[in-house]
Amino acid sequence: MEFSEYFPIWNQLKPRQQETIADKVTFRAVKKGAILYSGIDCTGLLLIKSGQLRAFILSKEGREVTIYRLFDRDLCLFSASCVLRSIQFDITVMAEKDTELWVIPADIYKQLMEQSAAVSNYTNEIMASRFSEVLWLVEQIMWNSMDKRVASFLLEEAAIEDASLLHITHETIANHLGTHREVVTRMLRYFQSEGMVKLSRGVVELTDRTKLKNLSGA
Amino acid sequence: MEFSEYFPIWNQLKPRQQETIADKVTFRAVKKGAILYSGIDCTGLLLIKSGQLRAFILSKEGREVTIYRLFDRDLCLFSASCVLRSIQFDITVMAEKDTELWVIPADIYKQLMEQSAAVSNYTNEIMASRFSEVLWLVEQIMWNSMDKRVASFLLEEAAIEDASLLHITHETIANHLGTHREVVTRMLRYFQSEGMVKLSRGVVELTDRTKLKNLSGA
Repeated sequence: MEFSEYFPIWNQLKPRQQETIADKVTFRAVKKGAILYSGIDCTGLLLIKSGQLRAFILSKEGREVTIYRLFDRDLCLFSASCVLRSIQFDITVMAEKDTELWVIPADIYKQLMEQSAAVSNYTNEIMASRFSEVLWLVEQIMWNSMDKRVASFLLEEAAIEDASLLHITHETIANHLGTHREVVTRMLRYFQSEGMVKLSRGVVELTDRTKLKNLSGA
Repeated sequence: MEFSEYFPIWNQLKPRQQETIADKVTFRAVKKGAILYSGIDCTGLLLIKSGQLRAFILSKEGREVTIYRLFDRDLCLFSASCVLRSIQFDITVMAEKDTELWVIPADIYKQLMEQSAAVSNYTNEIMASRFSEVLWLVEQIMWNSMDKRVASFLLEEAAIEDASLLHITHETIANHLGTHREVVTRMLRYFQSEGMVKLSRGVVELTDRTKLKNLSGA
């Protein structure tokens, strides 16, 4: 079964545990834009085979800010908030690209964590890693001005897509960064006037990455 | 030994594990203002007997923002970043009050986590709880204006101290919230003009908690 190749600590499970999880896991293919999880419930853990997910929080007014993003072989833990009773926040998980993934039922995973220090320690590592990302975000929003954050975001996108031509709207960038579309548009026009990007409908082309990098302060 | 009464999962340890940890743990009494941890090293885990700690991040320019606070019986995990290799951030931990605590050496704790699913799951719960606090902070700084945040902070302080008279400087409040002293002073003066607080040197007295609460939006 393919799941075993993607689940990082498969070899540390006992044969009976492997059987249980292999038996209960389900495979799903979702389209770009699908909401996989929202709010506090227990969808289960999501292990990505291929694709891209985005976890974000929502304000009462419907503004968004991206908390972290998940790629091939990443495990989404917070879509199973019932696994840990100390998780007390609402997060939304959305497919940023067409995505294939396995859903591990929360109760099965919880059982494994209780039985196996390996599973529990692996979970700790994932959480520490997400924690690091969120603290990086706090630093960004506390100390970096929006122009630096937009520049960083464009460079991150270009790295993910391995391309200089990004098919992304100003609205989408604003939703990642927790700001308004108008703010992003203003920044991008400034970037364009400085020769760092070239704008056209639904497209941002990075034309001077060095200059963007210098601006981002990275 | 008293440590056993404070360590929440003492009874879930095997006798030999109890012996190891009891043997290696050290007791410390620190004064208010003492820095217990800064940056990425491996001080060890801190279990608070009594007192109050504050974990914060620092900008390059020396600005601070409080990430979370720890009280009696709380365990500070991130002062032992080597326990989890995925912890990749610099945090500073400072005593906000005179504090008595135990230091659990990082290697001993790491060993326990690897042996015991109970210890590892307990660690997961702590991390999930801190994660929830940091996401709350992200929501605060993203969606709440500074007047709301100052009002929330004053109410939190009053709850911690169980008092309406707070001995705290504007500078300290600014460092908690990641802003400048002048901004806090302006807010507090506005609060005073609205009858919510009364200001004197080094003191903020809460005179209308209901009004502060309404303002905070809580």
